[in-house]
Amino acid sequence: MSTDKKSRPKARLPRGFRDRGAAEIAAERRMLEKIRGVYEAYGFEPLETPAFEYTDALGKFLPDLDRPNEGVFSLKDDDEQWLSLRYDLTAPLARYVAENFQNLPKPFRRYQVGQVWRNEKPGPGRYREFTQFDADTVGSPSPAADAELLMMVCDALEAVGLKRGDYKAKLNSRKFLNGILSLAEVAPQSSGAVLRALDKYDRLGDAGVRALLGDGRKDESGDFTRGAGLTLQQINKIMRLFTDDADDLTDVSGFDDLKAIMTILSAAGYESDRVEIDLSVVRGLEYYTGPVFEAQLQFPVQNEAGEEIVFGSVAGGGRYDDLVARFTGQQVPATGISIGVSRLTAALTARGLSGDIKPLIVVLTMDDAARSFALAKDLRDEGFRAEAYVGNKKFGDQLKYADKRGAAVAVIEGADERASNPPKVTLKDLKRGAELSKSIESRAEWLGERQAQLTVPRSELIAAVQRMLSG
Amino acid sequence: MSTDKKSRPKARLPRGFRDRGAAEIAAERRMLEKIRGVYEAYGFEPLETPAFEYTDALGKFLPDLDRPNEGVFSLKDDDEQWLSLRYDLTAPLARYVAENFQNLPKPFRRYQVGQVWRNEKPGPGRYREFTQFDADTVGSPSPAADAELLMMVCDALEAVGLKRGDYKAKLNSRKFLNGILSLAEVAPQSSGAVLRALDKYDRLGDAGVRALLGDGRKDESGDFTRGAGLTLQQINKIMRLFTDDADDLTDVSGFDDLKAIMTILSAAGYESDRVEIDLSVVRGLEYYTGPVFEAQLQFPVQNEAGEEIVFGSVAGGGRYDDLVARFTGQQVPATGISIGVSRLTAALTARGLSGDIKPLIVVLTMDDAARSFALAKDLRDEGFRAEAYVGNKKFGDQLKYADKRGAAVAVIEGADERASNPPKVTLKDLKRGAELSKSIESRAEWLGERQAQLTVPRSELIAAVQRMLSG
Repeated sequence: MSTDKKSRPKARLPRGFRDRGAAEIAAERRMLEKIRGVYEAYGFEPLETPAFEYTDALGKFLPDLDRPNEGVFSLKDDDEQWLSLRYDLTAPLARYVAENFQNLPKPFRRYQVGQVWRNEKPGPGRYREFTQFDADTVGSPSPAADAELLMMVCDALEAVGLKRGDYKAKLNSRKFLNGILSLAEVAPQSSGAVLRALDKYDRLGDAGVRALLGDGRKDESGDFTRGAGLTLQQINKIMRLFTDDADDLTDVSGFDDLKAIMTILSAAGYESDRVEIDLSVVRGLEYYTGPVFEAQLQFPVQNEAGEEIVFGSVAGGGRYDDLVARFTGQQVPATGISIGVSRLTAALTARGLSGDIKPLIVVLTMDDAARSFALAKDLRDEGFRAEAYVGNKKFGDQLKYADKRGAAVAVIEGADERASNPPKVTLKDLKRGAELSKSIESRAEWLGERQAQLTVPRSELIAAVQRMLSG
Repeated sequence: MSTDKKSRPKARLPRGFRDRGAAEIAAERRMLEKIRGVYEAYGFEPLETPAFEYTDALGKFLPDLDRPNEGVFSLKDDDEQWLSLRYDLTAPLARYVAENFQNLPKPFRRYQVGQVWRNEKPGPGRYREFTQFDADTVGSPSPAADAELLMMVCDALEAVGLKRGDYKAKLNSRKFLNGILSLAEVAPQSSGAVLRALDKYDRLGDAGVRALLGDGRKDESGDFTRGAGLTLQQINKIMRLFTDDADDLTDVSGFDDLKAIMTILSAAGYESDRVEIDLSVVRGLEYYTGPVFEAQLQFPVQNEAGEEIVFGSVAGGGRYDDLVARFTGQQVPATGISIGVSRLTAALTARGLSGDIKPLIVVLTMDDAARSFALAKDLRDEGFRAEAYVGNKKFGDQLKYADKRGAAVAVIEGADERASNPPKVTLKDLKRGAELSKSIESRAEWLGERQAQLTVPRSELIAAVQRMLSG
């Protein structure tokens, strides 16, 4: 192949994509296993659908309402049909259920964890490929199905290490909100602006939302957001949502669902320290038709500017009764919740909950690779994470390697050690000796640095490594 | 949204893709965790690269040599650059190493498990999306690096449950084969045909390969395969590979590598019951430059026609020293092995090694969903897989559901049971009662069928379920 410089491609990641290394992968894997354990214990079964769907089967349920026809990666197959990469795990589920309806248990409860792709403009922390962890119940109109998802997400968040009080699962109903809008005689074309205003209640408070429902609001930077243009009377009717004076709203459609869900949750021991109704939860997706959910983390983290902010939403979902009907014409009630995997992993890492990685032991290779492998194997057989160095034999390179790998202990068995009676091995505590080793190029120099070093009979290797690791 | 029949899309999987259900996912996950455990114990670190790479970065190292420019899914990004979905995990690794060379430990040893996509004509058992599990060592020319991969794949195959003798890791060298071809004065344009002929030694034996090296061979069906057109003298020189009379081949380039690898393996205890040289192993990829590896399963399985066949290859790889040079101009020695995840999962399933799924307990819901959840939670807290039924309350539907889910036990706590003193629950052994339940539509009928049924005090629920599950 040509190594002519002009013809060489530049090694670079595509825009909006990223590589992920050992620490993040390990933290995410541990977290996913915990969530999976909870979901499987509840009897949800795993499903995997392919990365591609036919574009017409995905439909236009795109997350970004302003650009309903954009946002997906699509290409034409060689039979002229358009394929798209999935942008979430719900649209493929609807396709799967419609295709296999007769053979599925009803209700059908599945979880799926997998990558999704969005053909959007990348930005800081905003990637075009990310992972979602979804659980959905298809075929049940019962509030028990919604309540179960809320219990599951609470259990999952506690399983990954969060304490009660670190998170809160929130419940609202789009049907109820729509009922309120209709009670306040909001025109259909204004309802989007009203829902977006309610969604900001946590951040802007009563006055801010009232401004957005009315003429509009100027923020601290001076930017003006146009309001929904409601009358004061309409605004008062809507803002009653956030007061205790809401008893006369019990007739509004959707209220009964909320109440039934909360009753089940409470009876099952999920009280307001874990789940609560929050009428400001709107969720962006057009397809929600009833209850909507969100799980929020409530502890502060530092943002890039060093400011303390509340972490916020890590999961969301709700009831969508129309997705399967796209294919079959028949309404199938469904409800689901989706965990944003990268966000939750980042939150756990910020909280110190992402877990430890086993310390690494590197067996250096002096003259005989097979001996190093045998030593590494003995260590592995005792449950250590241990490797034999397989690169070139320059001693300085081996130490640099152990350093870059963040190894805790180096083991060395040269000809001298092997020839002694009884045969010996030398151990170096790299955590304590790390500073020293940087300037060391030869084995003689290295062995001269005695502070963090130990020579023991070969038969005592395991015990000596154990002692060195435990301090 | 419209449910007008004409505008409805058909719910269907794209050509060459498939959905995967609980049993396969569970078997694969267990298997991947075992392999991961082995690779991590050897000190290999996980890496994840994105699904997309720039098309020019992927290059033309496509598996199918006959169509070097086809076989990938590509699309143009909105900045006019071409993106392709990865078709293996090696090309992205080369891009990653070239991009991050300065910061990586040398050698760099990583494993990656992930999906790859091939835009090929689908066929039975031949999909356009599948999973690979790769381990590679970049930056070491040492035979120790090759030997390590062979040890790892042996350990991995035993970790997933295969016995010694069920599998064999095989070693050959492309450099050595090329040396033999050169010794036999094979013209460059014939070398592909010669290698393809050697690759069939296992299946066709001495006479078959000799025919393919010479004028050609007619198979049982009468189809004729044109031969490489070598002279008898050339053929004899090459076929000496497969005899014990190969001592004078020790000067051929590549022989030393093979010997060094085998010496390390043998010293580390990996003898011919696990690893052996097999000079018929060729591996298809153009980019191999030295040793090549393959892991084969040696037990018979039934094919679709019911015939017993040997399962064959489940992993392959080798040394490729030129991939990183595509980007940097600098040769970086590298070696790797890739496990075909679906094939190995299928083999383990055929061998009865894919593991059991925990039995499922379904708590039926009579009048009070919260009570069912509380019962299910009590069971989960004791380690059972237990769910509360969340669908409609028709009794027949609930039984059908439990049946379709393959539940082992159904638990029921209706108003009668609850009112009794002490409160009771009823358990039904669905494995023993499965045949009966099919014709049952009412609770009264169901409770009338006493054979596989038990009513116990609520406080004895856990013990009773345990007894029922254990027989």
